[in-house]
Amino acid sequence: MRSPGLPTISAGITVLISAVVCYADPLPVNFGVVVFPAFQALDVFGPLDVLNMLSTQFKTNLFIIADTMDPVSTKSRAAAMNSTGSDFGQSIVPTHTFQNAPPLDVLIVPGGQGTRAPDLATTRAFIKDTFPSLQYLLTICTGSALVASTGVLDGRNATSNKASWVWATSQGPEVNWIPKARWTQDGNIWTSSGVAAGMDATYAFVEAIYGLAAADWILSKVEYERHTDPHWDPWGEYYNTTWPIV
Amino acid sequence: MRSPGLPTISAGITVLISAVVCYADPLPVNFGVVVFPAFQALDVFGPLDVLNMLSTQFKTNLFIIADTMDPVSTKSRAAAMNSTGSDFGQSIVPTHTFQNAPPLDVLIVPGGQGTRAPDLATTRAFIKDTFPSLQYLLTICTGSALVASTGVLDGRNATSNKASWVWATSQGPEVNWIPKARWTQDGNIWTSSGVAAGMDATYAFVEAIYGLAAADWILSKVEYERHTDPHWDPWGEYYNTTWPIV
Repeated sequence: MRSPGLPTISAGITVLISAVVCYADPLPVNFGVVVFPAFQALDVFGPLDVLNMLSTQFKTNLFIIADTMDPVSTKSRAAAMNSTGSDFGQSIVPTHTFQNAPPLDVLIVPGGQGTRAPDLATTRAFIKDTFPSLQYLLTICTGSALVASTGVLDGRNATSNKASWVWATSQGPEVNWIPKARWTQDGNIWTSSGVAAGMDATYAFVEAIYGLAAADWILSKVEYERHTDPHWDPWGEYYNTTWPIV
Repeated sequence: MRSPGLPTISAGITVLISAVVCYADPLPVNFGVVVFPAFQALDVFGPLDVLNMLSTQFKTNLFIIADTMDPVSTKSRAAAMNSTGSDFGQSIVPTHTFQNAPPLDVLIVPGGQGTRAPDLATTRAFIKDTFPSLQYLLTICTGSALVASTGVLDGRNATSNKASWVWATSQGPEVNWIPKARWTQDGNIWTSSGVAAGMDATYAFVEAIYGLAAADWILSKVEYERHTDPHWDPWGEYYNTTWPIV
């Protein structure tokens, strides 16, 4: 599967070029990642570390998009989530807000406890409004639950964190949730299982779009042993996830 | 191996308790991570995602320490490192500077291209001055090269990113570099191989200090398949790393 945005007028040339360079469509350049309070750090930085490395091979730009320009923390805002009294988190600096984000080719939506917050209306509106003009949408972990709540995933295959399966799937009853999957790809929508699965989904995305050599070069530098089978899912087995929920 | 800081006066009680709860020493509470321009994102956020989860089980605090309070970016400052013209990076917000950092139990030193910058004198001084009062030092990737350049690793076992092996080892000729290792532990010093190996080292650290149940609980939520064998190192094999360099 390649981008649905392939220009018909240049299809002949593109096919000719694809025989040489192994990819056909306009390569995505402008990536955005949505961040919100209490996002899961590895949901964002697992994929972005892969893409940081990709950016040294292919021209790409990243926009970090939030409600405001204030730094956004991984810390939970709910006191009930901090029974240990820990003070432990990291803040990332947005480059844009939902109001002034530039056109995007790829949107990445992470998960985390923050996806359950009651004040995500502007985040949801941004996702829903941006989706039609994207080449690709990637969700990590319960990012799929957040996107599902906008209706964007209705009728599409998707997966999510298996420890949060009942809640995540409740966010999109019309989604075709895949209960045993490291990641899913349905057309231009990629969704990953929980947290670390986002790295495997991102490597699969990089391989599909930029080629296996690009993915392998990154792996040779970052010493990550990727899972290449989207059906590998010991956590789905562990939590005995189903769809519909039984 | 446990903390060298075990108080002799309470050793009897500690041994008794350890039979019940599986850990004996004062648990580390105050974690610090050093950041500098062009740090590798996953070197920082791979381990910190593990520790973010740990902080919901054990009281811990995190201090993010840099030269100044300005946000610190993963982007390279060297134009030669950006031949694609990409604009792709993320900035983390420090909580303290090298001048006002609080006492730490654990210091984490990440790697990345930024470890090769010429202006790391204050970073090195902070690491060297802080080390004697630490319970534990953890390095990720070429963070070990940065620490090695301070002399702190002299005579100790350490490893580093295998793709950067020749440069990294050159930073500490008196270190006992381990050329095939996912991570090393020598007394209170833990060092990991490249980037993603930092997650495996952190899980090993969590298991050793906070117990296997703590590590397993995190893994059940974040769907990471950890490597538990410190000798597993396909990248050491691939790059045919040796010590001394031959």
